[in-house]
Amino acid sequence: MCHAVLKKSGQPTMKDVAREAGVSLGTVSKVINEIPVGETYKNRVESAIRKLGYRVNNYARGLKTNKTNCVALLMPSLTHPFFAYLTDALTESLMRHDYRAILMITNYDPEAETKCLLLGQQNKVDGVIALTYHPNLDEIDDSIPIVTIDRHFPGRIPCVSSDNFRGGELAAEKLVELGCKKLLYLGTGPEILGEADKRGPGFENACRKAGVGYDRISLHGGDSDTAIFDLIRERIKNGAFDFDGIFCKADWLARKVLNLLQEYGIQVPEEVQIIGYDGIIDYATGLYPCSTIVQPLAMMAEAAVNLVLHADEDLAPVNLCLPVTYVSAGTTKDSL
Amino acid sequence: MCHAVLKKSGQPTMKDVAREAGVSLGTVSKVINEIPVGETYKNRVESAIRKLGYRVNNYARGLKTNKTNCVALLMPSLTHPFFAYLTDALTESLMRHDYRAILMITNYDPEAETKCLLLGQQNKVDGVIALTYHPNLDEIDDSIPIVTIDRHFPGRIPCVSSDNFRGGELAAEKLVELGCKKLLYLGTGPEILGEADKRGPGFENACRKAGVGYDRISLHGGDSDTAIFDLIRERIKNGAFDFDGIFCKADWLARKVLNLLQEYGIQVPEEVQIIGYDGIIDYATGLYPCSTIVQPLAMMAEAAVNLVLHADEDLAPVNLCLPVTYVSAGTTKDSL
Repeated sequence: MCHAVLKKSGQPTMKDVAREAGVSLGTVSKVINEIPVGETYKNRVESAIRKLGYRVNNYARGLKTNKTNCVALLMPSLTHPFFAYLTDALTESLMRHDYRAILMITNYDPEAETKCLLLGQQNKVDGVIALTYHPNLDEIDDSIPIVTIDRHFPGRIPCVSSDNFRGGELAAEKLVELGCKKLLYLGTGPEILGEADKRGPGFENACRKAGVGYDRISLHGGDSDTAIFDLIRERIKNGAFDFDGIFCKADWLARKVLNLLQEYGIQVPEEVQIIGYDGIIDYATGLYPCSTIVQPLAMMAEAAVNLVLHADEDLAPVNLCLPVTYVSAGTTKDSL
Repeated sequence: MCHAVLKKSGQPTMKDVAREAGVSLGTVSKVINEIPVGETYKNRVESAIRKLGYRVNNYARGLKTNKTNCVALLMPSLTHPFFAYLTDALTESLMRHDYRAILMITNYDPEAETKCLLLGQQNKVDGVIALTYHPNLDEIDDSIPIVTIDRHFPGRIPCVSSDNFRGGELAAEKLVELGCKKLLYLGTGPEILGEADKRGPGFENACRKAGVGYDRISLHGGDSDTAIFDLIRERIKNGAFDFDGIFCKADWLARKVLNLLQEYGIQVPEEVQIIGYDGIIDYATGLYPCSTIVQPLAMMAEAAVNLVLHADEDLAPVNLCLPVTYVSAGTTKDSL
């Protein structure tokens, strides 16, 4: 499935280079992998590479030499349930492929991320799957294949995510269907934007399509996770909230907003309906924490592992968005 | 700190063997590591080993040869927040020591656990830290150092855990202090008992000391996680519960019991007080899920890593119980 999506890319391939240079695919491969070939052939291949703007795909090269059967997993932390579940799924997928998962915890620290990526480059892993907040992953050379999750570096590194934009749309569609007339998007996050920041635009897109009024409170960086609650409080007047439908960028935020509204005596879902994003089941209760857009975790993990293990020079980097689903779980009227 | 505890063990050491055999420590080391020495010396060392019942400590041996700077972490799953937080702490500790964490998810499956341990034995990791339900870890040979968490195989493999027995006592002491007169212990778990099963006995011990009546509902194996709720329901009569203080073996159980009692209109903590065990902060709310006995996760991780990296022939395997603390968080009267 991944491959079908990937093949559609317009990036030049090794085959294009071979055609342009008038040599066999094997000759191109030798030049790329620095295996000696005649000087004339070498020059022809190199000028074809320059002419086409072909970018040597080291994802493939890294995997084919010096195999260690290890893949590094860069995660910000396992204290966020989404990261914990994702790491679980990635590790199990790698193990099924007889690969080992080397877990690296970066604590959202770009320096730690760089250090972990450099470790990978020292040829000690066959690939890296990274959930990263690194400001400039482009500085990292591509001597080993890297696949990112939830953050796309266009044209270079394949990215796997849930279909964040569609998820935002779906949340708006559901809230409208459930009778909401005045919608709100709430989001916080780091300064560096990622795929998750498409949830807001998706939501707004569907609001416009439906002709329903909406607003958004979206904060990034620093203390955005706490500052947003002051902004929400400002919209509560005389025990009523300015909006009757809220889409929160993450389930943890939805849970906190739920608690805040209840403190002010506002009924959820009777007066205000809330939809979150992630869909990680609460271990203690075995239930979804709120009505939510569920990320296809197992599918995302499998796709990321497939991309890093089966990297191939004919497959250009893509942004692979996997389908989301909506579940009703307590904070919307369809759960009454 | 670990070492001080470890040194107290009465197990024979390599030094004892050297003294008994009348040879140098180096000679004992050579024999153990199968480095050729004169036949007479070899015989003397081997008979001293037999006489003293000295168990060759391969934890040390494994670490000193063929270093890979990798340690395997065997975890049942990362969907349980305790395992996720513990894995986070273990990985960060290993990284601080310039070691890599190879994560292996076993899904509570003994066959998967055995397979993962065998991978370790193929000399591809320097040590293993395992949270395991393997029915017989003794079947695994000790060619590499193993440290277990929460499950002790006496006399052979060092085990790190929170002070489960003391934690149980502390819970009982708190409930009594907060005015409870009729106490209940609730526990479920797999058939194979581990260190966590000392929480119940610790609780009962403190109840007896305090002269307070208590009962226990403790189920193991199969569907114990669901079956226990039927037994709890049987103790609810006319909107009242038979007990006024409950100690639950884990926070997830405490949360579920809280929900169940509230369904029957029973007030927590006014009518019934509940204390759980684990103390993992809820990511969504940033709060403890209930009043609880907190495991010292960072300390446990550091101790396990120290034990596996600094395994030394003079340090015999121990059961290292690290101190727990009580926090009040909503389900006991001290949080009112």
